[in-house]
Amino acid sequence: MVVAPLSQQLEVAAPEVISREDRARLDAFYREVQQQVKTFAGYPVTANFDYRELFRFLYYPLNNIGDPFNPCSYHLHTRAFECEVLEWFARLTNAPEDNWWGYVTNGGTEGNLYGLYLARELYPDGMVYFSQDTHYSVSKNLRLLRMPHIMIRSMSTGEVDYEDLAATLRIHRDVPPIIFANIGTTMREGVDDIERIRWILNDLAIPEAYIHADAALCGMTLPFIEGAPAFDFAAGAHSLSISGHKLIGSPVPCGVALALRQNVDRIARSVEYVGTLDTTITGSRNAITPLFLWYAIRARGREGFNRVVNECLACAEYAVEQLRNIGLEAWRNPHAITVVFPKPHPAVLDKWQLAVQGSDAHLMVMPQVDRPKIDALVKDLRDHAP
Amino acid sequence: MVVAPLSQQLEVAAPEVISREDRARLDAFYREVQQQVKTFAGYPVTANFDYRELFRFLYYPLNNIGDPFNPCSYHLHTRAFECEVLEWFARLTNAPEDNWWGYVTNGGTEGNLYGLYLARELYPDGMVYFSQDTHYSVSKNLRLLRMPHIMIRSMSTGEVDYEDLAATLRIHRDVPPIIFANIGTTMREGVDDIERIRWILNDLAIPEAYIHADAALCGMTLPFIEGAPAFDFAAGAHSLSISGHKLIGSPVPCGVALALRQNVDRIARSVEYVGTLDTTITGSRNAITPLFLWYAIRARGREGFNRVVNECLACAEYAVEQLRNIGLEAWRNPHAITVVFPKPHPAVLDKWQLAVQGSDAHLMVMPQVDRPKIDALVKDLRDHAP
Repeated sequence: MVVAPLSQQLEVAAPEVISREDRARLDAFYREVQQQVKTFAGYPVTANFDYRELFRFLYYPLNNIGDPFNPCSYHLHTRAFECEVLEWFARLTNAPEDNWWGYVTNGGTEGNLYGLYLARELYPDGMVYFSQDTHYSVSKNLRLLRMPHIMIRSMSTGEVDYEDLAATLRIHRDVPPIIFANIGTTMREGVDDIERIRWILNDLAIPEAYIHADAALCGMTLPFIEGAPAFDFAAGAHSLSISGHKLIGSPVPCGVALALRQNVDRIARSVEYVGTLDTTITGSRNAITPLFLWYAIRARGREGFNRVVNECLACAEYAVEQLRNIGLEAWRNPHAITVVFPKPHPAVLDKWQLAVQGSDAHLMVMPQVDRPKIDALVKDLRDHAP
Repeated sequence: MVVAPLSQQLEVAAPEVISREDRARLDAFYREVQQQVKTFAGYPVTANFDYRELFRFLYYPLNNIGDPFNPCSYHLHTRAFECEVLEWFARLTNAPEDNWWGYVTNGGTEGNLYGLYLARELYPDGMVYFSQDTHYSVSKNLRLLRMPHIMIRSMSTGEVDYEDLAATLRIHRDVPPIIFANIGTTMREGVDDIERIRWILNDLAIPEAYIHADAALCGMTLPFIEGAPAFDFAAGAHSLSISGHKLIGSPVPCGVALALRQNVDRIARSVEYVGTLDTTITGSRNAITPLFLWYAIRARGREGFNRVVNECLACAEYAVEQLRNIGLEAWRNPHAITVVFPKPHPAVLDKWQLAVQGSDAHLMVMPQVDRPKIDALVKDLRDHAP
């Protein structure tokens, strides 16, 4: 563990400190966090990470203002590390060499907003299609961007209903389609089949379309699972959003937006009148999350994530079995670490912080949700059986 | 200094660590940051802060998803601290009691995007007016939001040209105006006079208008300066954006968006069809920056910030004098900590990380820019005189 010597730290330290009462409040809050994390099993968020080696950078006002690939007169930045993170993700998602661009975002919503913005600039009259199982933030994004859109039926797996999609596309062939594909829906981890969607577009003789893949969670699981469906640039996506605080883990929400460079260049030109080639949504940008992601990638590598993801998958299957053993109709999609089961007693919901939709609840088998935790949850469910 | 015992930390620690080479690279980068921060004088960003007491929270996936005032099934959050921060800012900016709302953002751009989005939802056909000295991110925001807009001339102080504004408003009286007011422009810290703008609107018998105040920097300076112009809710602003990483200081860019609650409620209703009253731009939200801001506010209080701001002002005046002493035409706006002077030699620009616009450069007299630093900069300027 490398920590800055105190003397160096104090060079930039402000003299003020908080009162004894405030400190006690922080201590109490810290104990509460330690308690709550023990039963944190309902969100697609990893709780296993340790970035203490990077805390020394938190004494400085780091900021990755604007485009990560451009030089900047603000010298306190982590652009070099950010670019390495982006290159790693570009390779992971089969981005065409020398024809991709990206940046580290504040999370999945920003990555989706970026992809949709790009699509709108390319097809100003385009119509957005997304399934009813799509995260609510997408509707919010579309409203913000003033983009016309049509919601398509979902199947019980969470996947888009391809028949409804084809029938709807057929009657709107006069406007370019912008497909918002879920690579892992929030509630059931359903994965829209991008190759099948492209087949539908071809079949309808639609010459131009844009496909954005919201791969918040599964962008970091599917590449490590044998036989998993293809969702990336090679499969036909034009842009991707992948979260950093989900499978990888980060104390601060973050993510990666990736897009075809030829399209980003067109946007950049179109905003050139503002006197900059600034291409990101936010101006000042978090520079510590790129360091967190870089650290995780360097520490684990593909091999390490392969191990983590497949262990999660095995535990998810274990959870399905254990839940079925106590008579619950639990299930999961193939390749999914989301286990869906009937909405339980409110006390169990609250303790395990489980998300609910209609009559369903779900358990997210993230790295911290191991077999002993699953056993404890199953025991609670049995104790609170109706 | 309170640090979590190692045994507690290890409970959530991932086993992987980085290689010796990667660690050496981080060490080298750390030394570079320590070096660069010594001559960090061209950006409106504080380098004096010390949040080490809060680092222990970085072992946990804290997340303030959605509205800070709503309950949430995600228990690992800092909403209580965030709400206290917002209340502090609401009082500082004279928000009407029980009629304000806000959240901690990822920085100034998001706060401005929020204010403009709110304005657009209230006045879907509104026309946005902003001065030519406005930060380029605003044009980007307006493009994202598809809002029609007109750029107004600036005066040499950076302030909007009120005559041009009045003349332009006069010929567009058929659409509701949305005024984007700069409370401190990027380059010259010019402050648009909101009371004068309201007088113009009244004079033209324009019954309805929206005023958003971009108070990124000056939202945290003007309230502490005697006789400073009014820019807040009491002066007539409908929404405000104030940065947290500027005057207060934060290792991660952040800010506060504040708005009249009656308007936010109208937006919230209009997006209710998405099945949530979620009112923030991003979904998952950084929960550590609200803790940083809370800590700074509790440690300093109004009295502490009063001291900091007035010391910056005194140093800014000192800088103007010293620069004039070596024959440079340096100046600053009243109440400003931005010192404008002719663009110097590239070596000086680079060393002190000074921003440039046309033939001007500026020095930002933030808390770390004390008299010895100003003397060193002045010496460099003299050594590199043309």
